[in-house]
Amino acid sequence: MEILEQIAQEAEQNTQVPAYPRSVEKVIAAVMSSPNFWKIVDLSDEPLPLVAEILKLLNKRDLVVFEGNQILLTEAGAELAKKLGIEPFASHRCPTCNGRGVVIDDSLRPAFEKFLEIQKNRPPAIHQYDQGYVTPENTFARVALADDRGDLRGKKVCVLGDDDLMSIALALTGLPARVTILEIDERLVNFIKEVSDKYGLNIDARVHDLRQPLPEDVVGAYDTFFTDPPETVEAIKAFVGRGVATLKGPRCAGYFGVTRRESSLDKWARIQKVLLDMGLVITDLLHNFNEYVNWDYYQEMRGWQLTPVKEPPKEIWYKSTQFRVETIRGFKGFNEPIVGDIYNDAESSTT
Amino acid sequence: MEILEQIAQEAEQNTQVPAYPRSVEKVIAAVMSSPNFWKIVDLSDEPLPLVAEILKLLNKRDLVVFEGNQILLTEAGAELAKKLGIEPFASHRCPTCNGRGVVIDDSLRPAFEKFLEIQKNRPPAIHQYDQGYVTPENTFARVALADDRGDLRGKKVCVLGDDDLMSIALALTGLPARVTILEIDERLVNFIKEVSDKYGLNIDARVHDLRQPLPEDVVGAYDTFFTDPPETVEAIKAFVGRGVATLKGPRCAGYFGVTRRESSLDKWARIQKVLLDMGLVITDLLHNFNEYVNWDYYQEMRGWQLTPVKEPPKEIWYKSTQFRVETIRGFKGFNEPIVGDIYNDAESSTT
Ligand SMILES: [Fe+2]
Ligand SMILES: [Fe+2]
Repeated sequence: MEILEQIAQEAEQNTQVPAYPRSVEKVIAAVMSSPNFWKIVDLSDEPLPLVAEILKLLNKRDLVVFEGNQILLTEAGAELAKKLGIEPFASHRCPTCNGRGVVIDDSLRPAFEKFLEIQKNRPPAIHQYDQGYVTPENTFARVALADDRGDLRGKKVCVLGDDDLMSIALALTGLPARVTILEIDERLVNFIKEVSDKYGLNIDARVHDLRQPLPEDVVGAYDTFFTDPPETVEAIKAFVGRGVATLKGPRCAGYFGVTRRESSLDKWARIQKVLLDMGLVITDLLHNFNEYVNWDYYQEMRGWQLTPVKEPPKEIWYKSTQFRVETIRGFKGFNEPIVGDIYNDAESSTT
Repeated sequence: MEILEQIAQEAEQNTQVPAYPRSVEKVIAAVMSSPNFWKIVDLSDEPLPLVAEILKLLNKRDLVVFEGNQILLTEAGAELAKKLGIEPFASHRCPTCNGRGVVIDDSLRPAFEKFLEIQKNRPPAIHQYDQGYVTPENTFARVALADDRGDLRGKKVCVLGDDDLMSIALALTGLPARVTILEIDERLVNFIKEVSDKYGLNIDARVHDLRQPLPEDVVGAYDTFFTDPPETVEAIKAFVGRGVATLKGPRCAGYFGVTRRESSLDKWARIQKVLLDMGLVITDLLHNFNEYVNWDYYQEMRGWQLTPVKEPPKEIWYKSTQFRVETIRGFKGFNEPIVGDIYNDAESSTT
């Protein structure tokens, strides 16, 4: 059996994450591109537990070596790569928009500059609620995207879970007719309320555990929603379903991120089926649109146990693909209570 | 009944294209943004036959007026827009990459410049084969995208139908291990062969009617495919299916465009189901990535009969969303003969 196939099978057996010869190829290409574990996860675009396992298996076969915190191909590894025609990754990402396709232009800049100041005092991300927020540029790029797609002006917008402070960014632009946020973390709700009062933003901020059904007045009342669901199929069904339940009717829009760091493409396919079954159509999928600021609790997370070298991430490595969906005729949200643990599966690593 | 709902229902009855109050809202917002019919189709992002019908219905109700070649809101139309909170479209599209997220950078520029020269002598688009090609920048942006995603270096690439001259662009970069094209139009195949000989590109160019099963040696032999299918669910199933049948195994990639100009989001949802059912996962959906150079045969196409004003398009108006898909375990291509007319439905307008 071919060696990539062999490693893929063993890695899948050990992690229960779907693994392909191409997964191994991508990890090798990533090692050729960077010696840093977090960068290798980033570039290979495979789930962290799988990347960690593949690296260990490559190491066991003397194809990869761990030198201090560096991960390097051995001579045998380099020879294999050459034989198989594996080459390092190349990037053609646009430097102006960081590959997002939209920019924070003059019309958004004054609001963005206020946001930059405001967010300096945000509460830190905490493990209890699986928090992790995107960069301020990222939050505003989402605003630019949603406005570019016609989803903000004169619209009612609901944000379900808001460690990214989307509600503040949205309200600062003055574009939406109404901004509501539902968030379990009182620290965040209080922060958003204070900012809203100070800047006259009129944000409707409420403490709400999204595992519980939505407040009655929120159901079927919005044009656009934003959320950032945990990375299991069940969680995406439940939390995106909640977002969909806030929408008024067909042809309303929803925004959320799904990562590759904790999800195989096999899981993605199941996620996409769930979305279509809800009566949604996917209009935009923007790779690595979302970039998460490294959080402080990385040593508590499962991924940290799995890394072959123990160096904290220095640069951003946790990214996600921005999804935009629209409701069509016959769409159906989800507003039942969410019970049981739907936050974990074999592919997740940050909980 | 609310007026937007009323117009949507009447428009759907007359066109058999799914129409929503939001479709009417988008057409009104587009008229507020531009008086030009083609720009209105572009901005509203609804199928051309539906936009044309909605404009006629708005005109019948004295909300829109046709003045020469200009389409304008009447005073009553402007009042309605104000009452409903409808605002003109705003764009935050990145000017550097034209919203594509990838750029033709220094590493690709020499090949791109050769391509710019070469494509000047391309055969014109003809109606017989429903041709319409994208701008040279666009062709190369696709190369940049595919290389950014790791789908070109050392890979075997198959292009199914090539009025965009993807094969020449790909081969000029020197990145793929092999480039094959299958194309029904002898003019194009001959042109590509001549260029390939002159520049030593080693392109494997073959005359092939894609309605027929693939040549045997092409089945299951490639890492990456590009195609540009006609815009019906059946055609996408068949032609993307052909592309998938060229692929070696799981985690190979396919690229193709799907437009909103000839497809409602309801049709998109059916298309996306078809893709998932084939064992594909959608990794990228890039809105308006593809921009088609206006073709000469517009007066022969169905859309021309439908336009409320008879002015040929001056700027690019026909755009499509770039899809990238990957095969996963259990994927299944389509290599049966394609019979019957699968090229037309109520939403199409350019055939
Ligand atoms: Fe850009
Ligand atoms: Fe978050």
